[in-house]
Amino acid sequence: MDNASLRRGKPTLHTLYDDATAILIGDALNTYAFELISRSALRDDVKVELIKILSQNGGIAGMVLGQAIDLEFENKLLSLEEIEILHKNKTAKLIAASMQMGAVIVDLDKTKQKDLYEFGLDLGLLFQVQDDIIDVTHTEQEAGKPTNLDGDKNSFINILGLEESLQYANTLAKKLESEFQNFDKPLQKALESLIQKYLYRHKD
Amino acid sequence: MDNASLRRGKPTLHTLYDDATAILIGDALNTYAFELISRSALRDDVKVELIKILSQNGGIAGMVLGQAIDLEFENKLLSLEEIEILHKNKTAKLIAASMQMGAVIVDLDKTKQKDLYEFGLDLGLLFQVQDDIIDVTHTEQEAGKPTNLDGDKNSFINILGLEESLQYANTLAKKLESEFQNFDKPLQKALESLIQKYLYRHKD
Repeated sequence: MDNASLRRGKPTLHTLYDDATAILIGDALNTYAFELISRSALRDDVKVELIKILSQNGGIAGMVLGQAIDLEFENKLLSLEEIEILHKNKTAKLIAASMQMGAVIVDLDKTKQKDLYEFGLDLGLLFQVQDDIIDVTHTEQEAGKPTNLDGDKNSFINILGLEESLQYANTLAKKLESEFQNFDKPLQKALESLIQKYLYRHKD
Repeated sequence: MDNASLRRGKPTLHTLYDDATAILIGDALNTYAFELISRSALRDDVKVELIKILSQNGGIAGMVLGQAIDLEFENKLLSLEEIEILHKNKTAKLIAASMQMGAVIVDLDKTKQKDLYEFGLDLGLLFQVQDDIIDVTHTEQEAGKPTNLDGDKNSFINILGLEESLQYANTLAKKLESEFQNFDKPLQKALESLIQKYLYRHKD
């Protein structure tokens, strides 16, 4: 909904086709996520739990809310606390949800599910700060999407400046690193590649 | 997506707020349907079956497909067979799905589930023909939405004319009436008010 012409180096649907097609494909993919879970080879109670988590975090109390806040305050500078709420909803809850869903699928207990969800919230926030940093420090080709687009937006850069945003990212990354060290060995092994790929992305 | 300013006598979201809000509310409600089912008091296997039916009929192989066909051929007159495909997907599959979902909830056997789904497809098609008839024969106040909007669209009226559309609706209504008579008594009783309300709506 930020009208960008590229995502991950590929043209976005509304530029390649039109707005209506892009909206419909969004509806279709959103619905297809639930279809895929319902048709998967998992136990019924696991499927229901996954659908509960996905719908709660992707809908009105999650991603949709975050996107709505983002649009509503596009031209009004928010406080740091306010954009944390924005990006927790818009980006982080869906990342947190997918970590929790992984935990549900492999039958981890409720405490570990919650730990992974919280870890995912911070990881999602870090991902967003990194995106904002990349927007001002990288070329379009490096980022895989148009950069320097966030001038009017509630980006971390506009609120904190580049230096403080880098510090904010470092602090979050270190917090995640220490939480990661507290996970048991099998969980650490499972998450290792994720951590390596994303934790210090803002330093690439 | 037809840009109408009223629905059931109330202003549509994109006129009251803006396009982005309307799109987000659509996403939210679509997702909320799955959340509601996942949180309901039904058995897990029933929930999974309901989600399977809803996602299949509301998504890329159902309502989304119908809406996409409708937009793609807005300015090209389709054949009767083609608009039947359009409206089966855009309108009828979701009505059929809700009848099948009712059958799943009360544990009717697969044959009865299928009968109700097929009944719903015809009922959905009838609903659409009736809508097209009402568009040319009723005022905005009577219809609860702006009328005479279908001039350029693939309405049954534009393809068959009013007289043949009325005949088409009558034929479908009679077919549904006779199928209804073949349902067992408890099912007839459960569906009676639906039948009375919708079967001859085009004659109101």
